[in-house]
Amino acid sequence: MNEADFIARLRTLPLHPGARGLVDDVAVLGGLVVTSDTLVEGVHFLPGDPAADVAWKLVATNLSDLAAKGAAVEGVMLNYPLRDADWDAAFLDGLATVLRAYDVALIGGDTVSLPAGAPRVLTVTAFGRDAAAPARSGARAGDGLWVTGTIGGAGAGLAIACAGAGDAALLARYRRPVPRLAEGRALAPLVHAMMDVSDGLLIDAARMAAASGVAVAIALDALPLPAGVADALAATTAGDDYELLFAAPPGFVPPVPATRVGGFAAGAGLTLTRDGAAVALPAQLGFQHGLR
Amino acid sequence: MNEADFIARLRTLPLHPGARGLVDDVAVLGGLVVTSDTLVEGVHFLPGDPAADVAWKLVATNLSDLAAKGAAVEGVMLNYPLRDADWDAAFLDGLATVLRAYDVALIGGDTVSLPAGAPRVLTVTAFGRDAAAPARSGARAGDGLWVTGTIGGAGAGLAIACAGAGDAALLARYRRPVPRLAEGRALAPLVHAMMDVSDGLLIDAARMAAASGVAVAIALDALPLPAGVADALAATTAGDDYELLFAAPPGFVPPVPATRVGGFAAGAGLTLTRDGAAVALPAQLGFQHGLR
Repeated sequence: MNEADFIARLRTLPLHPGARGLVDDVAVLGGLVVTSDTLVEGVHFLPGDPAADVAWKLVATNLSDLAAKGAAVEGVMLNYPLRDADWDAAFLDGLATVLRAYDVALIGGDTVSLPAGAPRVLTVTAFGRDAAAPARSGARAGDGLWVTGTIGGAGAGLAIACAGAGDAALLARYRRPVPRLAEGRALAPLVHAMMDVSDGLLIDAARMAAASGVAVAIALDALPLPAGVADALAATTAGDDYELLFAAPPGFVPPVPATRVGGFAAGAGLTLTRDGAAVALPAQLGFQHGLR
Repeated sequence: MNEADFIARLRTLPLHPGARGLVDDVAVLGGLVVTSDTLVEGVHFLPGDPAADVAWKLVATNLSDLAAKGAAVEGVMLNYPLRDADWDAAFLDGLATVLRAYDVALIGGDTVSLPAGAPRVLTVTAFGRDAAAPARSGARAGDGLWVTGTIGGAGAGLAIACAGAGDAALLARYRRPVPRLAEGRALAPLVHAMMDVSDGLLIDAARMAAASGVAVAIALDALPLPAGVADALAATTAGDDYELLFAAPPGFVPPVPATRVGGFAAGAGLTLTRDGAAVALPAQLGFQHGLR
């Protein structure tokens, strides 16, 4: 069963009104927004990635979901699997670093042991408040599609981590993503829809369009690429950038640095252009669990 | 690093005021109580346990933490690792069963994939409201130590699951624990301290006493044992019963079925008696992660 099938079956269960039909990255409970992300060793991070970087990424990916809702961070819970003392100690150092970097408090969690040699599976649940909480389903025909920062850096960083050598800035994009908390706070009250780019620009833009009941077109030539990344098409299917992707009305002037990379129209589906000419979609639009 | 060492280091990080110093099973956030439990295949459940039972246990153990705070259930989040379609489908059936049994709504979560052959690691985070939320640290010298239901049934059920045959009622105690939600609602406003028995009566009572700054004594002859369980000492160190353990003042008359199994006194530590005579403590008081 792949992720989409599993989630489709979850939707047949009794859902909380704050679950937003399981189509959003956060739930809304009273005055809080809540999100939970799990990272799996060998899937979301490499067994050789430094433990401190894994701690950073685990917290940062959750904060990124709060950023996409314009939330102020209330705190995080940690579910941690003990396996080896040196790694655990390095993880705790990294956890202290990322919590202090974003002024985040620890709320609680659970500690478990793992069978010898089992891949680590780590979960953080993050809580935010005062969120404008734009859904991913609010894009309208005529809206522009925008993204903060640059796209493709984390994908290039993953290749560098696998190769063992390369540009340090790109490697950091993969290992220490920066949640766009301030940008999210500024954008959330102004935009029609927002989410973070975690699985790839194409698949995440397609998800926003599908949830909103509109079509989306992306211009490869408009894509903001980081230094050292030249292949725009590869950048659109690489995940882990954790930039904010949002839909905003025509004429929108973003209050933070952002790039218009496409737009929404009546209809359905995703189209890709380069210099105005159609480009064939790649076979896989991004990362999907259970499809590898 | 064992669980206690890890948690001691977590306590040096910035803690949320609702974290209760990481000594309780729940956090308090606004009007909500929040708890999160992770189950690991090969640690908390057997690889051969039916998937529907694992779903039940995963939700029930979290609801048990809400029960210990006297909370009404608001809903649960699920972090699920996809690995094999048949197991996933059976898990979903079990999830539907337990959610409907306790009228629980799904709030959200995350779905990930696992490397082939990796043990499953499943997390549920449960949210409750209207909780009297007695801490585990409120026991006072002179209080009685009480427990709902019976103790040792789940431990006997685990032995049956390993052996492959035995009493069905005891096996169900291990595989389908019953969260004491109604009992918790009735008890929470009346008691001084409460928690659930998850790792074993002795270790959990010792934790309550330590958190409260008092000593605790347990009378083995007072222990309520289920049919088919005769060894009271073994029952006190077996985990997974998910009964409620609470401290209540002298003369307390419980509003729900419960048994007084001991009492608190000034001082520190845990003592064990049988028919008034001291009994040596077992080498291990219960289940502790990282100590196996």
